[in-house]
Amino acid sequence: MEQRLPNWLKQRAYLTPNRKAVIFQGKSLTFEELYNEAVLTAKKISSLSIREEDTAAILLSNHMDTFITIHALQQLNVRTVFLNLRLTPPELAWQLKDAGVNLLITETQFMSKKDEIHSILPNLHVKTLEEISSSNPDEVSIRDEFSTQDVCSIMYTSGTTGNPKGVLQSYGNHWWSAIGSSLNLGIRDNDVWGCAVPLFHISGLSILMRGVIYGMTVMLYPQFEPNEMNTHLKQGRLTIISVVSAMLQRMLNDLNEERYHPSFRCMLLGGGPAPLPILQACMDQNIPVFQTYGMTETSSQIVTLAPEDSLRKVGSAGKPLFPCQLKIENSDGGQALPMEAGEIIVKGPNVTSGYLKREDANRTSFTDGWFKTGDIGYLDEEGFLFVLDRRSDLIISGGENIYPAEIESVLLSHPSIADAGVKGMHDPDWGEVPFAFVVIKEAVTEMDIIRFCMDRLAKYKVPKKVHFVSELPRNASNKLLRRELPLLIE
Amino acid sequence: MEQRLPNWLKQRAYLTPNRKAVIFQGKSLTFEELYNEAVLTAKKISSLSIREEDTAAILLSNHMDTFITIHALQQLNVRTVFLNLRLTPPELAWQLKDAGVNLLITETQFMSKKDEIHSILPNLHVKTLEEISSSNPDEVSIRDEFSTQDVCSIMYTSGTTGNPKGVLQSYGNHWWSAIGSSLNLGIRDNDVWGCAVPLFHISGLSILMRGVIYGMTVMLYPQFEPNEMNTHLKQGRLTIISVVSAMLQRMLNDLNEERYHPSFRCMLLGGGPAPLPILQACMDQNIPVFQTYGMTETSSQIVTLAPEDSLRKVGSAGKPLFPCQLKIENSDGGQALPMEAGEIIVKGPNVTSGYLKREDANRTSFTDGWFKTGDIGYLDEEGFLFVLDRRSDLIISGGENIYPAEIESVLLSHPSIADAGVKGMHDPDWGEVPFAFVVIKEAVTEMDIIRFCMDRLAKYKVPKKVHFVSELPRNASNKLLRRELPLLIE
Repeated sequence: MEQRLPNWLKQRAYLTPNRKAVIFQGKSLTFEELYNEAVLTAKKISSLSIREEDTAAILLSNHMDTFITIHALQQLNVRTVFLNLRLTPPELAWQLKDAGVNLLITETQFMSKKDEIHSILPNLHVKTLEEISSSNPDEVSIRDEFSTQDVCSIMYTSGTTGNPKGVLQSYGNHWWSAIGSSLNLGIRDNDVWGCAVPLFHISGLSILMRGVIYGMTVMLYPQFEPNEMNTHLKQGRLTIISVVSAMLQRMLNDLNEERYHPSFRCMLLGGGPAPLPILQACMDQNIPVFQTYGMTETSSQIVTLAPEDSLRKVGSAGKPLFPCQLKIENSDGGQALPMEAGEIIVKGPNVTSGYLKREDANRTSFTDGWFKTGDIGYLDEEGFLFVLDRRSDLIISGGENIYPAEIESVLLSHPSIADAGVKGMHDPDWGEVPFAFVVIKEAVTEMDIIRFCMDRLAKYKVPKKVHFVSELPRNASNKLLRRELPLLIE
Repeated sequence: MEQRLPNWLKQRAYLTPNRKAVIFQGKSLTFEELYNEAVLTAKKISSLSIREEDTAAILLSNHMDTFITIHALQQLNVRTVFLNLRLTPPELAWQLKDAGVNLLITETQFMSKKDEIHSILPNLHVKTLEEISSSNPDEVSIRDEFSTQDVCSIMYTSGTTGNPKGVLQSYGNHWWSAIGSSLNLGIRDNDVWGCAVPLFHISGLSILMRGVIYGMTVMLYPQFEPNEMNTHLKQGRLTIISVVSAMLQRMLNDLNEERYHPSFRCMLLGGGPAPLPILQACMDQNIPVFQTYGMTETSSQIVTLAPEDSLRKVGSAGKPLFPCQLKIENSDGGQALPMEAGEIIVKGPNVTSGYLKREDANRTSFTDGWFKTGDIGYLDEEGFLFVLDRRSDLIISGGENIYPAEIESVLLSHPSIADAGVKGMHDPDWGEVPFAFVVIKEAVTEMDIIRFCMDRLAKYKVPKKVHFVSELPRNASNKLLRRELPLLIE
């Protein structure tokens, strides 16, 4: 399945040198400028004895240098681990160790994390962007071609079993994801794709990738500000943006009765099911919402509502992208009938070849090119997907994936806790937030437990509430029934 | 390099069933209807004992049933030889035999050719569309996936050595060609691509392919009529059309001072270098001309002028499509400097893997994925391609490729001719037409020679003029110097 393609950024610098590649806080770079910056940064990184097919990690917020650094690592064919900024130093260290990272690239604002990571991984090579910038560029030849099979990025995702797994995203996965999206949304010469989602998520990285593959301008934001985004959409400065429900809700709250510029053509809405009132409000205000379903393993969208169906199939995630396939497997392992719920199984050249060093999980999740998502859904008579339940009781909070098992394992390590369960509960701002249900063996306060979690978990994973209960609902084989947890507090 | 993708037409029937797939003389089919028609035709063809990976040939003019039949053969994974309607029965029989064709599909208007072909290939299975239509459909399962490596189409192209060679075009070649084009021209939901070029040429077949891959409407014409095309463009019924210079010239003659509808966005101009006066006239009338360079071996365009460069680089064929690469090899076999002429060498996933059963030609023409086109050109300082001379003194007449060697070998088989050379000469209507230069050994008239050629060559290949000369220009190693032929008559 290997295909060699021209080095994407180099090709863009040759084909469309003067088009704007990226805009960040009023500063912009053309493709030629971005390429030159990326090559210079690549040469400086190379001087730190990092070589082709080594693994680097980045712990960087959204800004121009991050955009350049991501491209620089691709110029060197260095695999890049994208670290979530919200993780605690022990969580970061775990991923760095698992991926065998040779170099961590970060920035001054995360220096406190750096020290703590160093205390866990004393031999890790860590450099800030400033340190890289002042290095002497190495003489390194920039590659002419990308291979679709080479691993480009690694993003960690958790699961039922606690430890996060590194999803291997190849150049081919990103290519096909971008092409699949283009065959659904089209490509226009005036397109500007707004990126106010983190570049360390596939939602953000996939925008960077589409930018270089399409030759399209990416407008990068340091963080999401509903008012700034609304202003830009009203001014016609963006034609497409990627959002999650929590972001869209805040934009609607800020928008009042005003309308977006007619050149705005796509509000790509991912990261979990969208509440009906939001969709209704968008319809009322002529906002072109394209609901989508995807995950780190599918390198962004895999199912999207086509323009002509967005009004008729509200609540559906749509149909697969053109290069992708979809089926529902019922509990007998057979193919489900229309309207029959079962596990969502997907296939396509954008789907990861597997998790880094997780042979067991790979055996379980991948069969003949089909990936078992663990999510539950059904297809209607016309083949539109409706997602009922995200995998493994996944909690999606403001677009971040939270796995109950990971929080439960931290809770269970607390000396006073005998049993623990975690469930996502509705939240008006974040969609969902995690609630903990604990059985204690000795006196402990909610605040003690929360503080304990704070030290070990990224803030967004820390339970927003802890309920003390006498027993957790479990089935005959002692499996925790997370869906029944809310009944304990009704 | 194999990639399995969902069966394109079946996927379109699932994803965008109600979009118009094709319009022909006022009748249209949606993707769902086209799929159903193609499946029914596939079942009828299958009843003629044609099986997966067999080879069929079509001798069909541009009409709806041809469009359906091409898709039907793809549903069955039957390789399809696309026969040029203008070929003589001996030329057709040669290709049919070379490709090992199991079934020839044709139509009533070509029955006279059928009989003559049968006299050469008595065992060939021949069916008309009418006969197929009245067959009983076989029970055949339609495949779920296409493999990018399977051969989809075979088109014959000649060369210096006389005998035509079958170019193997895989599903992957067509896919990448369509994607490469989309990354240059974009994709819009209102796109309608006009096809007044023959479906048996790659220029026409590539429109059918883009249609199903993009989910775009193809407007098919039985033949090119400049006035009809101008009317449709003025009415805004087409957003893109593919033309060669001779077509464009006739459209300009017909257009007078009128303007096309603003939704018309691309006049894709291929099939040989465009005369400057035509480009100038288009510029004056705001006609968005995209010059392009491609050939059967590259499954349509491989080099195209991007929108932003069309005015600045008149006369250039442009830069490679995004997935493609280009280099110029000088006479020493090294890479040419900017402005230095040499052989044009191309690479990309749209380039054929080779010629059918032509190991020698394949060894000569393909090295490490690079294809030696035989054409001569140079790159300017910015990397824009300028094509100087088509390969092997290729003559391009109204978009048809004519190889001098093929005509010369017919001339040399005439009992009165001792030596012969053929050269393309400028013609106001067709761009170029072939002229013959002959040395005779006994008396013969121009009319005798032309009649002799008429019996053996498609009409467009027959020399428009025969010059009787005493000697042909040849170099030391006795190679014919075709470029010097015109000097004999100055």
